[in-house]
Amino acid sequence: MLLDNINDPKDLKKLSVSELETLAGEIRQFLVEKLAATGGHLAPNLGVVELTLVLHYLFDSPTDKFIFDVGHQSYVHKILTGRRDRFDTLRKYKGLCGFVKRSESEHDVWEAGHSSTSLSAAMGMALARDLKGESNKVVAIIGDGALTGGMALEALNHIGHEKKNLMVILNDNEMSIAPNVGALHHYLGKIRTDRHYQKAKEELNSLLNKIPAIGGKIAKTAERFKDSLKYLLVSGILFEQFGLTYFGPVDGHDIPSLMEIIKQASQVEGPVLVHVVTVKGKGYSPAEADSFKWHGATPYKIESGQMLKAVGPPMYTDVFADALMELAEKDERIVAITPAMPGGSGLMKFAGRFPHRMIDVGIAEQHAATMSAALAMEGLKPVYAVYSTFLQRAYDQVVHDICRQNLNVVFAIDRAGFVGADGETHHGVYDIPFLRHVPNLVLMMPKDENELRNMMKTAMDYNDGPIAVRYPRTNGLGVPIDPEMTAIPIGSWEVLRSGEQVAIVAIGPMISVAEEAADLLKREGINPRIINARFVKPLDEEMLRSLAEDGMQIVVLEEGAELGGLGSAVMEFYSQQQIFGVNVRIIGVPDVFVEHGSVKEQRAETGLTAERVAADVKTMMPRRTRMATGQ
Amino acid sequence: MLLDNINDPKDLKKLSVSELETLAGEIRQFLVEKLAATGGHLAPNLGVVELTLVLHYLFDSPTDKFIFDVGHQSYVHKILTGRRDRFDTLRKYKGLCGFVKRSESEHDVWEAGHSSTSLSAAMGMALARDLKGESNKVVAIIGDGALTGGMALEALNHIGHEKKNLMVILNDNEMSIAPNVGALHHYLGKIRTDRHYQKAKEELNSLLNKIPAIGGKIAKTAERFKDSLKYLLVSGILFEQFGLTYFGPVDGHDIPSLMEIIKQASQVEGPVLVHVVTVKGKGYSPAEADSFKWHGATPYKIESGQMLKAVGPPMYTDVFADALMELAEKDERIVAITPAMPGGSGLMKFAGRFPHRMIDVGIAEQHAATMSAALAMEGLKPVYAVYSTFLQRAYDQVVHDICRQNLNVVFAIDRAGFVGADGETHHGVYDIPFLRHVPNLVLMMPKDENELRNMMKTAMDYNDGPIAVRYPRTNGLGVPIDPEMTAIPIGSWEVLRSGEQVAIVAIGPMISVAEEAADLLKREGINPRIINARFVKPLDEEMLRSLAEDGMQIVVLEEGAELGGLGSAVMEFYSQQQIFGVNVRIIGVPDVFVEHGSVKEQRAETGLTAERVAADVKTMMPRRTRMATGQ
Repeated sequence: MLLDNINDPKDLKKLSVSELETLAGEIRQFLVEKLAATGGHLAPNLGVVELTLVLHYLFDSPTDKFIFDVGHQSYVHKILTGRRDRFDTLRKYKGLCGFVKRSESEHDVWEAGHSSTSLSAAMGMALARDLKGESNKVVAIIGDGALTGGMALEALNHIGHEKKNLMVILNDNEMSIAPNVGALHHYLGKIRTDRHYQKAKEELNSLLNKIPAIGGKIAKTAERFKDSLKYLLVSGILFEQFGLTYFGPVDGHDIPSLMEIIKQASQVEGPVLVHVVTVKGKGYSPAEADSFKWHGATPYKIESGQMLKAVGPPMYTDVFADALMELAEKDERIVAITPAMPGGSGLMKFAGRFPHRMIDVGIAEQHAATMSAALAMEGLKPVYAVYSTFLQRAYDQVVHDICRQNLNVVFAIDRAGFVGADGETHHGVYDIPFLRHVPNLVLMMPKDENELRNMMKTAMDYNDGPIAVRYPRTNGLGVPIDPEMTAIPIGSWEVLRSGEQVAIVAIGPMISVAEEAADLLKREGINPRIINARFVKPLDEEMLRSLAEDGMQIVVLEEGAELGGLGSAVMEFYSQQQIFGVNVRIIGVPDVFVEHGSVKEQRAETGLTAERVAADVKTMMPRRTRMATGQ
Repeated sequence: MLLDNINDPKDLKKLSVSELETLAGEIRQFLVEKLAATGGHLAPNLGVVELTLVLHYLFDSPTDKFIFDVGHQSYVHKILTGRRDRFDTLRKYKGLCGFVKRSESEHDVWEAGHSSTSLSAAMGMALARDLKGESNKVVAIIGDGALTGGMALEALNHIGHEKKNLMVILNDNEMSIAPNVGALHHYLGKIRTDRHYQKAKEELNSLLNKIPAIGGKIAKTAERFKDSLKYLLVSGILFEQFGLTYFGPVDGHDIPSLMEIIKQASQVEGPVLVHVVTVKGKGYSPAEADSFKWHGATPYKIESGQMLKAVGPPMYTDVFADALMELAEKDERIVAITPAMPGGSGLMKFAGRFPHRMIDVGIAEQHAATMSAALAMEGLKPVYAVYSTFLQRAYDQVVHDICRQNLNVVFAIDRAGFVGADGETHHGVYDIPFLRHVPNLVLMMPKDENELRNMMKTAMDYNDGPIAVRYPRTNGLGVPIDPEMTAIPIGSWEVLRSGEQVAIVAIGPMISVAEEAADLLKREGINPRIINARFVKPLDEEMLRSLAEDGMQIVVLEEGAELGGLGSAVMEFYSQQQIFGVNVRIIGVPDVFVEHGSVKEQRAETGLTAERVAADVKTMMPRRTRMATGQ
């Protein structure tokens, strides 16, 4: 195997083109075999095998900087940079990260996880290079989906303005995670279908570029003529108008063509864009046939392509989507919005049933939020389904457009809490702290899938402003489902277990942890009260008062940042009310970024376990009132 | 005066074109006279007099929806919709808002303050209209600066995809607040200089549009030919490629031409963009000559155009900028970044001194943040100068790109706290709650301008990750300035006045309020300790422990949201350390949006006054330890 001898990009450079082609096949086989056991982003990586080989062949990483947008398509890069032997640990606790990771290799120069950041990063690196008087290349590799994210377009506008040397590789596979959306997508499609004109156009274009610039009076007319001719000849005129020199489209699986065009492009002054057309899932037929399904794969059988899925109760995501469909049958105001996640949000079925009432805006979290605000302004009931971590992109729109105008937007915040293998870029542990201080917003989290349904009903019945329900990336608990959904009184908490002296105020999946802790404590004769704090905002003030009146101490348990979260809300309430003497202890996610692994491992690492909760409850038991000196 | 009889858009429709022209002159005179007394966004409004007249003349507001991007160019709209007599109260407490305001008029259908939201709003309104089976027009009015904001480009991509009927008026005045930046800007410039071809091109284009679409085999070739011709003929091919039909450019001060082109455009199916070229400050020579200065005017003398400015100590903004220049002389790593605010951030002078080290990216807060991250990654020391309220746009980039990668980005967060006349869209009252929970970030606020300088030095000396300094939109206190800047130990607070029983922990301008409160209390024999909590993160844990040991009660005073702010941080610390028995009372901005007025009025409305603080301190005095039942 050629692959056995590739431990550094330098090893690549000894190979011939036909050896590279052989190597590409070996890498594909390696990926298909390894990911069958671990799962991972198979289809995106199969799509960039040749591209990654050619980049490492032509450039000198890490002096030359490769910036992978999102970064889940960096597996080939990892294989080529000495991490081949770690693929058994891919996306596992303490194992190889599923994204670019600086701590793994000097060849990893920029980390991501969220999309559309690579052009800004490339611009910053090019600026820094020039300020430092260095001469390395900067190459951003971005998908056609990520290009529609607002910040990528902001960067494109600035790149075209500054005219620094940098290369954008547009990895055009017609997909975000789902099929791509937007005018740019149609534009790229037009270029792709035009590919048979390509060769002739390239030759003419290169001729045209050799015409020297003309000065003086006739310059403008001449330039205009040249521009017009270019439009006939060059496919990527839109990018040219943005100030980048366009190359392509080129077949991303044809190594000699890729070599030639990237070499050409790297000789041009100023920013260039190379339009590379790739096939997601290339070389593994199940993934080629359904690259949507194979974007992120669970472990699978190689021959059949059958994915192995854990059986269990329905995911919260699916319960949300089903409830929304039921509600939408009766309520014509309901419109669902997703920023490029029709699959992940569970809304695909909804779109089938109500094609005009499901709007996929592409990777555009900000636009999705403000568009939802406008839909609400006009009397509709928009449901903005978004992952907690991606809602971070729309924080200003939540504040400025939705909450400030107090509009009836419903947020369905998926992937709240730890997310497991995707790791630190994807956890939903900040939405409580970044939403809780925004006026007018109601924020809920259900204890189980039946309560999620009731919360969806609550949200639909609520017409006094924005309301959000957050739920985890897990299966439900398998509880019985009520035939009818019932709205829950806004701001009402629920006592799940009676008990004395200490109350555990918990939300979402942490309620099970609290119950487990209570079971442990029972053996020692301690009976904490367990409360389902299903509204993070508004709080159940009556219950909080009664806890104080009962002389209870409180442990708040939440799978979210412990700074500014539910625990702080409880303390703020008592402070505002000048109710002193209720001791509150917060068990939440500490002030660090938590790496990939299983959710269970992430909870164990951060102390969100029954054992820890039980131990903390014990310290809260009133031996005597602890005073200022602590312990 | 014609204007005396215009109390509703209906009144406009009775006028002839020449009367409209007369009316335009009257409106300009009205604006120049009224704003001389109140101040306000003079230049932007002088630029859209004819445009606003024509829109109200041709369309039927409020059935047809006008969505003003940002909204500070809505004065003419306000004059035409019955609010002429309220202009003496413009931007004053309980007076006319400086932006679009739904509570003022049924003609105000969408509020903003931040830029680039109008296209998303228009898209939402068009979708809602079609879902409801209605037929009103939707018109977004957006500046060329705002168009480069990422969310506007996200919306443009979606608008071109969905093909709904809506009109985008591109108000192209070559400016954001400062001269505009970016490739799109250059592109528009190219179109504008081409205007003499305009008439002929319009005729040919309209002819071209009449050619019916051809089906079958030759369709593609024919379409391509038509497209190519269009490029020769139509200026706005970039917008056409985005899927909008382009009209223009048209002189925005020529009423008959405006009428004709907007009428034409409104008959086209699908989204259209009308490119209107306007002159900011049009008709008032001082403002025409320096539209940058006259973007937001303070009161002025009409004849001389002399702006009346309060004299006083230097603004924090200027102190920041001067300190940065001093530091940059000695530290070559320093690079300043602004998202379209070279004036407001004070960086204009810096750009003069270090032209290659000041980067204005245009309205692109997200890109600015992530580009800063990349500059830091390459060993430079980027200083991202941004208003608190606009940093909301880059929340995800702060979390995901800067803090998660723990990069040495310096944030200079201006306009922290209340901002006065700009009102609820512009206050900087959320940055503490939205930044405090992000790992790795250091967050500071100075008590005076000398300390701001020391904090700038602190930030430059700190190389362990991101560090932010926030400062208010006010003058400094006029304190003496140390000749040398001195770094402050990270996380160290400062006792400003010794005292017993109660400590007032305050930051920034609230320290003066605390001191005033202490003066009031002194008369009653109460001597609170006053502490300058200059680090919001990390906290001064040693001092907090010593407060507990001294048996102090604590009042936290901050001009920021009281949910999730510094007060919560203090309570979280005691909770984490299991130090119980320290009662903490938070005086901050309550959980509402606070409208325009003076900062003093905003503080009075929200209880950030010496009297309130004094009263609260009194209730904290230990008569006896208050227990769970409150008072």
